[in-house]
Amino acid sequence: MKIAVVGGGSTYTPELAEGFGANAVALGIDEVALVDPAAKKLEVIGPLVRRIMRRHGSDAKVEWTTDLDRGVEGAAIVLLQLRVGGQRARIEDEAFPLECGCVGQETTGAGGLAKALRTIPVALGIADRVRELAAPGAWIVDFTNPVGMVTRALLDAGHRAIGLCNVAIGFQRRFAGLLGRAPEDVVLDHVGLNHLTWETGVRVDGRDVLPGLLDEHRDEIADEVDLPAAVFADGRVPSYYLHYFYAHDTEVERLRTAPSRGREVARIEAELWKIYEDDTLDRKPDLLSQRGGAYYSEAAVALMRSLLTRDGGVHAVNVRNRGFLPYLPDEAVIEVSARVGADITPVDAAPLGPRQRGLVAAVAAYEELGVQAAVRGGERRVYEALLAHPLVGQHDLAEGLTARLIATGRDHLPWA
Amino acid sequence: MKIAVVGGGSTYTPELAEGFGANAVALGIDEVALVDPAAKKLEVIGPLVRRIMRRHGSDAKVEWTTDLDRGVEGAAIVLLQLRVGGQRARIEDEAFPLECGCVGQETTGAGGLAKALRTIPVALGIADRVRELAAPGAWIVDFTNPVGMVTRALLDAGHRAIGLCNVAIGFQRRFAGLLGRAPEDVVLDHVGLNHLTWETGVRVDGRDVLPGLLDEHRDEIADEVDLPAAVFADGRVPSYYLHYFYAHDTEVERLRTAPSRGREVARIEAELWKIYEDDTLDRKPDLLSQRGGAYYSEAAVALMRSLLTRDGGVHAVNVRNRGFLPYLPDEAVIEVSARVGADITPVDAAPLGPRQRGLVAAVAAYEELGVQAAVRGGERRVYEALLAHPLVGQHDLAEGLTARLIATGRDHLPWA
Amino acid sequence: MKIAVVGGGSTYTPELAEGFGANAVALGIDEVALVDPAAKKLEVIGPLVRRIMRRHGSDAKVEWTTDLDRGVEGAAIVLLQLRVGGQRARIEDEAFPLECGCVGQETTGAGGLAKALRTIPVALGIADRVRELAAPGAWIVDFTNPVGMVTRALLDAGHRAIGLCNVAIGFQRRFAGLLGRAPEDVVLDHVGLNHLTWETGVRVDGRDVLPGLLDEHRDEIADEVDLPAAVFADGRVPSYYLHYFYAHDTEVERLRTAPSRGREVARIEAELWKIYEDDTLDRKPDLLSQRGGAYYSEAAVALMRSLLTRDGGVHAVNVRNRGFLPYLPDEAVIEVSARVGADITPVDAAPLGPRQRGLVAAVAAYEELGVQAAVRGGERRVYEALLAHPLVGQHDLAEGLTARLIATGRDHLPWA
Amino acid sequence: MKIAVVGGGSTYTPELAEGFGANAVALGIDEVALVDPAAKKLEVIGPLVRRIMRRHGSDAKVEWTTDLDRGVEGAAIVLLQLRVGGQRARIEDEAFPLECGCVGQETTGAGGLAKALRTIPVALGIADRVRELAAPGAWIVDFTNPVGMVTRALLDAGHRAIGLCNVAIGFQRRFAGLLGRAPEDVVLDHVGLNHLTWETGVRVDGRDVLPGLLDEHRDEIADEVDLPAAVFADGRVPSYYLHYFYAHDTEVERLRTAPSRGREVARIEAELWKIYEDDTLDRKPDLLSQRGGAYYSEAAVALMRSLLTRDGGVHAVNVRNRGFLPYLPDEAVIEVSARVGADITPVDAAPLGPRQRGLVAAVAAYEELGVQAAVRGGERRVYEALLAHPLVGQHDLAEGLTARLIATGRDHLPWA
Repeated sequence: MKIAVVGGGSTYTPELAEGFGANAVALGIDEVALVDPAAKKLEVIGPLVRRIMRRHGSDAKVEWTTDLDRGVEGAAIVLLQLRVGGQRARIEDEAFPLECGCVGQETTGAGGLAKALRTIPVALGIADRVRELAAPGAWIVDFTNPVGMVTRALLDAGHRAIGLCNVAIGFQRRFAGLLGRAPEDVVLDHVGLNHLTWETGVRVDGRDVLPGLLDEHRDEIADEVDLPAAVFADGRVPSYYLHYFYAHDTEVERLRTAPSRGREVARIEAELWKIYEDDTLDRKPDLLSQRGGAYYSEAAVALMRSLLTRDGGVHAVNVRNRGFLPYLPDEAVIEVSARVGADITPVDAAPLGPRQRGLVAAVAAYEELGVQAAVRGGERRVYEALLAHPLVGQHDLAEGLTARLIATGRDHLPWA
Repeated sequence: MKIAVVGGGSTYTPELAEGFGANAVALGIDEVALVDPAAKKLEVIGPLVRRIMRRHGSDAKVEWTTDLDRGVEGAAIVLLQLRVGGQRARIEDEAFPLECGCVGQETTGAGGLAKALRTIPVALGIADRVRELAAPGAWIVDFTNPVGMVTRALLDAGHRAIGLCNVAIGFQRRFAGLLGRAPEDVVLDHVGLNHLTWETGVRVDGRDVLPGLLDEHRDEIADEVDLPAAVFADGRVPSYYLHYFYAHDTEVERLRTAPSRGREVARIEAELWKIYEDDTLDRKPDLLSQRGGAYYSEAAVALMRSLLTRDGGVHAVNVRNRGFLPYLPDEAVIEVSARVGADITPVDAAPLGPRQRGLVAAVAAYEELGVQAAVRGGERRVYEALLAHPLVGQHDLAEGLTARLIATGRDHLPWA
Repeated sequence: MKIAVVGGGSTYTPELAEGFGANAVALGIDEVALVDPAAKKLEVIGPLVRRIMRRHGSDAKVEWTTDLDRGVEGAAIVLLQLRVGGQRARIEDEAFPLECGCVGQETTGAGGLAKALRTIPVALGIADRVRELAAPGAWIVDFTNPVGMVTRALLDAGHRAIGLCNVAIGFQRRFAGLLGRAPEDVVLDHVGLNHLTWETGVRVDGRDVLPGLLDEHRDEIADEVDLPAAVFADGRVPSYYLHYFYAHDTEVERLRTAPSRGREVARIEAELWKIYEDDTLDRKPDLLSQRGGAYYSEAAVALMRSLLTRDGGVHAVNVRNRGFLPYLPDEAVIEVSARVGADITPVDAAPLGPRQRGLVAAVAAYEELGVQAAVRGGERRVYEALLAHPLVGQHDLAEGLTARLIATGRDHLPWA
Repeated sequence: MKIAVVGGGSTYTPELAEGFGANAVALGIDEVALVDPAAKKLEVIGPLVRRIMRRHGSDAKVEWTTDLDRGVEGAAIVLLQLRVGGQRARIEDEAFPLECGCVGQETTGAGGLAKALRTIPVALGIADRVRELAAPGAWIVDFTNPVGMVTRALLDAGHRAIGLCNVAIGFQRRFAGLLGRAPEDVVLDHVGLNHLTWETGVRVDGRDVLPGLLDEHRDEIADEVDLPAAVFADGRVPSYYLHYFYAHDTEVERLRTAPSRGREVARIEAELWKIYEDDTLDRKPDLLSQRGGAYYSEAAVALMRSLLTRDGGVHAVNVRNRGFLPYLPDEAVIEVSARVGADITPVDAAPLGPRQRGLVAAVAAYEELGVQAAVRGGERRVYEALLAHPLVGQHDLAEGLTARLIATGRDHLPWA
């Protein structure tokens, strides 16, 4: 069984390698292919991944290549972890929305749309090669943000794709800690859209323990999501990305003094590259945990196992709505706890309330328009998507953001 | 046939009287009862209404009373035109949201919620008496803002109610003028929620002429709705209330220098009272047209005719959704062009796009929570409704607005 | 020797009474007259003040009257502590500027101007009676905010007036605590305008210990003035009122959720009145300290002693500039540490830097225009003063604030 | 007589050449040297300047060089027209302040400080060579923005420098037009700081005609300066740069949708270079007038004449204050109408009012700190200057702007 990692030259790949290594037997991994246009990075990351897998006792073949076709050929799973335009584009995504008084962030709002517009055409091109060359029935697992929109674009084009986010696994670990239980004992009612989710229930031994958790740990949970407890007094815990909505202006204020996250990650990555150069290194360094993406490796490996073995495990994934949220179109891509067996079936979770539903519907409408803008192009479609976004919503902002998005992103927009 | 006007002491009543008078025969009006707690106002308005109806040749009985029961007894139609708290409360509705940087307006946003919270308990109390005392099958026709939420509260309590707004009739007249046609030749595809509607089609002789209208009169229509044409480049024309959404911050800026609309109306009303004192006056004065509510009388009379005769006329009304907009709950109250015959059936209108749907879903969620807050009371429910409103949406704003809404409105909030 | 307290019916007066009582012999107080238009309040406060003074062993005559002339007749010192319009006006001062996005506060910005416009005409009227009836050479000591502008108006009209603020004495106590010294060992270089002052030096035994204090207690001082230490890294410590300037938007954000200070004080005062009703009470209750005005009594008594005995004590007072700050006009009223002997002479303090000077010059210009607006009246003058204020400075804000200031304050503006 | 133009490769130089050519005899110009680090630009501009001067009948020597020393050697006048960092830096100056909600502009606010920090070290380096190599008594005439701060830095370093702005000459032409007089008949009372000036009087035949002008042409003047007439109802007409102060937030709103001025100028310059390539061209093209800097050439030539001949002509120049504005330090550089003869003496102009004085004092304090930051360097000094700027003034904005200014400008800041 072969796994291909597109964007495999990322500083993040050693994290994945730890997961592959530890589960190589269980997953039956024979081969790992790292694909990246950056040959130099592959020359560092490739051998490191091989050493990490060896440390875990796996003798799977590890190869690296700048040739997409060679990389995905015969793969059963293709992981997408791209960053079109690199950290430089991220720094722009974080900066230009602030000029219009809107949150600058790489997955939410105008910055997230900029990333979607750059990424989707590239992801679709890769998926076409996967369809042609990968193993029959191969899955594309998307980690690349904005995961919901990228997954939707892939599904719309007829690919066999599923999106994965690490928000849910983070909550699972955190709640398990508060409950004094093992993570695998805790099953979440996780529902919404990617980066716009709520935990509406927390199942332990079949019982919903969320009300008790909130009673006992209200303040810790409020700290965790960086929002006052009043925001989840209705018993539904927002992910910390909801901070960009419920505390938008405060966040804008913070960003006005704070150093950009993109610049910070760029600094961390520079350090990581230095560490990676040590050709005796055979484990991920501690510093990697500061780069973001905690638990991603574990979530990914667990999902891959369910996809390959159809074991019916529950994962928080991005899939078609198909009526699960009746207020959204069937074709919308939602993020839910779902059982991954012969089929992928959302678990019967406690529902969102009207307050969440309104916001989810508004963002889903934006995502629909955003995917159209990415696939079909055109300034007009960018404007429509931004005007639909609840964090924009005003014609002058939509106009100013559209102009800036295109001016800063032009090099990566095929139609601009 | 008896019509009761609750809030009949309003300066606006002479406008209605013109409509009643001109259509007294067609509607079969035998009796008009004006009900108002303000006896002094009734002493001025009552005789004036009688003189207006006489001028039109109607000899219907015109009476006025501070006794609600007497007024609604035996009525076939009860019109609600209340202003709980008077212009003073309106001035507060316009002022306190501005303290939080939110639009100050009496139907939209926090000001609209304040009005709903004051008005719904009063409207429900009136409706209880109507149920008891009015003619069997009597209709409550609600003009009182926010019309959508008041209508929803009445329907939730099991009353036979329908809401009416003058936005659609205004567009009908305006479009008819641009087309060189009579207003009755023009049928609108009018769809959304009260004060959150779009014209998605304009039917003349069964053909949709909206695309042509937009081509030829784009700039005039943009002026009319006070928004750039880009906002309706998708072929759906927003009502001017959408200005509060698509140009929210610009509107806030304007309100910071502009005199309040409430103060302006108070000034106009003071002048109207002086004019009304002339006991030979037998027609509405020109000044009344500056007070707002243009064409309301015509829309109301036409709707009353259809309600009484089941003639199948098309009116823009507020009714239960019942699946018409599949992304909203069945119990939501929507505003649509509907055929009013034996049943009330929305006409098959061109649909809203994703951009409008997202906003409609978000505001519908707010309205659901707002009606709950009005009916059941409590600071917590006010906060939830405000947090759900797309023009608020942030926890600190919701908190600050909640505190101010309660502080300024306390005298009219039964639970505060 | 007679002291008159105009506004003597205030809940604050017991604080003063403690000071009068403790220093009755030293000051030679024979008589204390409380003057207030509110007879009912005087009936409570008057006897309480008498009991407090008796507790201190003073048998000075304590009388109370609604008759200004009787109250000030023969007084050697007249203290002004007015609140024209009461707490209700204060609540307005705190609310209306927020509608324009400006800080709402009763001494700074548009709220402070509103208070000045209401207060100065009243203060001038009182001062005219003092000139006529008080003892020869009597001093008017102004506590009434905005102290700088009220004092300037009194001086411009030829009265013998001096203004007093409690910011300096607060710093003196605080610094003394940090230094482990008695307050009277600590002399401040206190310089600027009322509520716009900096401590530029702290003298102990003739040596400036401020640099050391800042080194050792930087964070405590930052907490005290609620500003980051970067703001005083140049060695000049701003008063906490500078928070309204250096953290204006943060303060506006805070005010959007916070309960108004005026409402809070109104609540405290309601409690105080209940406590004061106990006719055995003979000391100020602890709750009084929450009302604001800490140490005012001590500062006032100390200043009065120097005014009466010409003992050369150093006090932070509001006096004519007369060249002390060369970048301000001679007639400006500044707040400085000054030696009060035969003359009142500012002490030779470490100077402000360019950063402070620019702000002081801008606010002094505003104060000059604000006093003109108060004395001569007219919308135009109000607009000019607001446009000059560094926290307003924009034509649309000045226009909107002018309209609101006049609309809310009309009852107390003789010219409106 | 030799004139050197440093930054002579600018697209603007042909404008100057027209002025040199037309006045070559009157000024006695023997030689014009264009100095620029961009050899390619000089190869285009140099011959064009020569052709323009020939067209005017001048046979002065025109040379061009990348060697500063050769260029300034023996010059009697050295004009500075630099743009350190080019249009790219300007685009940054316009963008980064917007991220903090502050006006983005290359001469005012944080953008202006960024330009000052880049430019002053370069200007000082050039001036050192001028001192060494130019003719005895040579003048440095600075056009480079921010003119006030650059001139101050040059004077502080002991250079013989004077600053020139085109605002005054623009007003002179405009007022002359309104009055139906020749420009040279109109003498302005022009007073303030560079880009922060007011016309306090307009002299024609020795009489101040400004009051009449304002009565008759109020609306045209309001349009001209893009501010409501209320702002100059006190009879002092602000320059259009005051728009950034009196309408700051409106301007920020505008900039959020508007294309950046820097991008626009870059586009115009690209077109100009195409036109300039025509080696028969011997006059400035019309397009040049859209690039900004109208009348600069005339103002410059007129000033140069007065500097060379000491003819006592009146020019609006940037010079030391030396007591002219008593509320500013003597060393401040102010912009005033001054008689340029044996000495340079400000003309006795109608004074600024308190409203203007406060703002001028605040900006002068910023400029003093800004020049220190440019000359001595350091993040701390940048922060102090920004905190002193009336358009910043808040600690979090100063912090965020400082970080951004340094991040975007690092390549041109010798100390960063």
